Amino acid sequence: MMRYSDDSLMLHTDLYQINMVETYWKDNVHERKAVFEMYFRKLPFGNGYAVFAGLERVMDIIENFHFSKTDIEYLREVGYSEEFLSYLSEIRFTGDIHCVKEGEIVFANEPLLRVEATLAEAQLLETILLNIVNYQTLIATKASRIKMVIGENTAMEFGTRRAHELDAALWGTRAAYIGGFSATSNVRAGKLFDIPIAGTHAHALVQAYRDEYKAFKSYASSHKDCVFLVDTYDTLRSGVPNAIKVAKEFAGRINFKAIRLDSGDLAYLSKRARQMLDEAGFTNTEIIASNDLDEYTIMNVKAEGARIDVWGIGTKLITAYDQAALGGVYKLVSIEEDNGEMADTIKISANPEKVTTPGQKRLYRIINKGNGHAEGDYLALASEDVTQERLKMFHPVHTYISKFVTDYTAKELHVTAIKDGKSCYEQPSLQEIQRYAADNLKLFWDEYKRMLNPEEYPVDLSEKCWNNKMKLIKEVQEEVEKSMGRR
Amino acid sequence: MMRYSDDSLMLHTDLYQINMVETYWKDNVHERKAVFEMYFRKLPFGNGYAVFAGLERVMDIIENFHFSKTDIEYLREVGYSEEFLSYLSEIRFTGDIHCVKEGEIVFANEPLLRVEATLAEAQLLETILLNIVNYQTLIATKASRIKMVIGENTAMEFGTRRAHELDAALWGTRAAYIGGFSATSNVRAGKLFDIPIAGTHAHALVQAYRDEYKAFKSYASSHKDCVFLVDTYDTLRSGVPNAIKVAKEFAGRINFKAIRLDSGDLAYLSKRARQMLDEAGFTNTEIIASNDLDEYTIMNVKAEGARIDVWGIGTKLITAYDQAALGGVYKLVSIEEDNGEMADTIKISANPEKVTTPGQKRLYRIINKGNGHAEGDYLALASEDVTQERLKMFHPVHTYISKFVTDYTAKELHVTAIKDGKSCYEQPSLQEIQRYAADNLKLFWDEYKRMLNPEEYPVDLSEKCWNNKMKLIKEVQEEVEKSMGRR
Repeated sequence: MMRYSDDSLMLHTDLYQINMVETYWKDNVHERKAVFEMYFRKLPFGNGYAVFAGLERVMDIIENFHFSKTDIEYLREVGYSEEFLSYLSEIRFTGDIHCVKEGEIVFANEPLLRVEATLAEAQLLETILLNIVNYQTLIATKASRIKMVIGENTAMEFGTRRAHELDAALWGTRAAYIGGFSATSNVRAGKLFDIPIAGTHAHALVQAYRDEYKAFKSYASSHKDCVFLVDTYDTLRSGVPNAIKVAKEFAGRINFKAIRLDSGDLAYLSKRARQMLDEAGFTNTEIIASNDLDEYTIMNVKAEGARIDVWGIGTKLITAYDQAALGGVYKLVSIEEDNGEMADTIKISANPEKVTTPGQKRLYRIINKGNGHAEGDYLALASEDVTQERLKMFHPVHTYISKFVTDYTAKELHVTAIKDGKSCYEQPSLQEIQRYAADNLKLFWDEYKRMLNPEEYPVDLSEKCWNNKMKLIKEVQEEVEKSMGRR
Repeated sequence: MMRYSDDSLMLHTDLYQINMVETYWKDNVHERKAVFEMYFRKLPFGNGYAVFAGLERVMDIIENFHFSKTDIEYLREVGYSEEFLSYLSEIRFTGDIHCVKEGEIVFANEPLLRVEATLAEAQLLETILLNIVNYQTLIATKASRIKMVIGENTAMEFGTRRAHELDAALWGTRAAYIGGFSATSNVRAGKLFDIPIAGTHAHALVQAYRDEYKAFKSYASSHKDCVFLVDTYDTLRSGVPNAIKVAKEFAGRINFKAIRLDSGDLAYLSKRARQMLDEAGFTNTEIIASNDLDEYTIMNVKAEGARIDVWGIGTKLITAYDQAALGGVYKLVSIEEDNGEMADTIKISANPEKVTTPGQKRLYRIINKGNGHAEGDYLALASEDVTQERLKMFHPVHTYISKFVTDYTAKELHVTAIKDGKSCYEQPSLQEIQRYAADNLKLFWDEYKRMLNPEEYPVDLSEKCWNNKMKLIKEVQEEVEKSMGRR
């Protein structure tokens, strides 16, 4: 790898973004005001909701939004003109970012983030923003889903070795914390994000002493809090008995916190181990389980009556194994015209769910004042008033379904994170973000939160928003017909 | 995120590694010589082989193997003693790393990497090494598998927006290049790794001009090489005709390289578009296809007679979507005893495939001198001579299967990358690594390389290696029985 002391993340983008900016710049439309929205079209894992994460990292990127000297040199090699390079080297982010908070409960087709900036700036932000938000939101969602099954038990993130390279391990465990996990094995995440860290010893310790009993004794001699990994040779015939033996010998000197099971039949082994621990008087010693766990295994093992207190989740959390990508997209919804007015834009597609919803929109959560629960989310054009007494909500696909709500609060979900290129949002602590996510989940009826086949939470368009979309579709179709005629 | 100017990657590890090192250090066994091997137990994607990647990044980590001041400060907060912290702050990597080359074709249960170092150093390396090699090898393998289906057509990596955070996008595209991809959309990867970059414009360009014809014309005015994305409104009725119209108007001034299809039925659209391009005289203009492609879709679309010249692969490559993790592990196989001699170690498991193979081993590729093809790989203890005339190869699971080979070359696959903590291996260029992988694949019969149900390539143990394993299993079982008796 070539090394550059001034390497920035501005080139962490798709080449076409820079090519488009070049075209805009040549046409002198690069400073027109543009509105882009980021959203995903489908909830991951068949889950009923998602948990937004990624804003901290995005804010970071925007603070350092300028091409470095070596970035420009590289682009010169690629072949861009000096005039264009000189423009690029001056570029800074001068726009606004409106965004849901980290830890917000979100749904498909909702703008998680709205960028209002010059066309050039907004375009240069797309790729890296998607790279960050897609991954972090995916993992926060997976973590929340797993935590939902784990319930009051403790969930720990153990996935670094299987994460997709270093950043995923680091930011993934932060996202897992937002989703409800209590601790991580990754020490650097502890240092950088103040996440509690957890871990004891591996099979290697037992192998290094070539004697499990000796290994546990050595560990107990050097650590007050002891968790013994009991499956290096034989869990019930060797591991658990040796752990108990050592704990008795070190009585008063160590805190025999837990044993850890990492292979075999976790339900059976945990029940037998619990019995052995209880009989030896270690009724407070907990049982930690790990080994390729996910929400399905955990639910089944629990249903079998497993006596597990702490769950260590690695691979299947940190890689979002059963659906390893969130398909978030970033679409232009409005652009400044020659006359300085904003015009809404659309992208049509043969796949109906890929047709975009034009216009700068606001996102509201409609909360029933009577029971305090969320009735649905509501997307309205920025110009609309939603403080009416009676709100007509419009199903965005099955348009014959519409409903009226009254006696509600419309909570706007976006905060302004960046205004005129400057941060204007104080990030909460990670602990506060985790709490925010957990509290927010309580707004929703259980049927939206169950693991299997949850009810679809309504995300509805305002009537104006819907009509605007229909109008643009019609305009485009007419334009296509007209141009066919011209050829 | 807390910011530290001296942040190192030493804490990018699991907490238990540090706890184990503490125990070793207290017992004064931390400087004993240890041998760890990294391998995976199962090939990913049902593929018949894997492509190793990750060494460059690992070498990087080892060169910077020391705790920074703020790392030590954080560990002090965690609660480690001053004596131990002072030991940690002095630690450097002083051992050896033997490793297959990047681009090497590898199989399950082969040591990809062997670390010979002090017990402490080797332990501190485990997590980060697995984090890197697991991901990069997974992606190089997926890329090679996809390239196998693509054949002589060009494969381009387009996945940054769906990668698992930034590092995965960057190192993943490097791994994809090793596996046979020709280019990436990620500009930073171009800058840092000298990978060719590719990209043209997105739907946003067409939307920004609110007129496809105008957008294409603007793009053509600012770019000599033109690839037009034709599916913003209607591929065959609007996109392709507009691309042709603009190409005719700019005849002589632009190079109409390609159109790109990004939605709809790629087989049908490509055939119709090919016809339209040909009729307009643009027989050299290529067709690029993208949209959630993987080896299965590509094979099917090709079988349907699609006229696609270049394939852009994103999500399903960069996330290894259908199997998002390679389960590589790192196991202690030999450790220095009290008397200074090396003793082999084993880990038993209820799952037979999880039982480790003890001892420091060498990995050979047995190449038939007659036909030049690989007969199988051969794992022998380091002390063994493999230059015998007649080699007995031993199936590691079905032990009644064994075979003799004669007239062979035994090519040792490991190089020494690090010796006494110092790099002693000159990394080839990325282009050379890609070529090495492609050339190496030719050693193998086609039946090991087919996409569906490939034959299992033999990775056999030497008889001594096998007997050594059996001996250790027996010893451990007897030890467990004895200790049961003692209680």
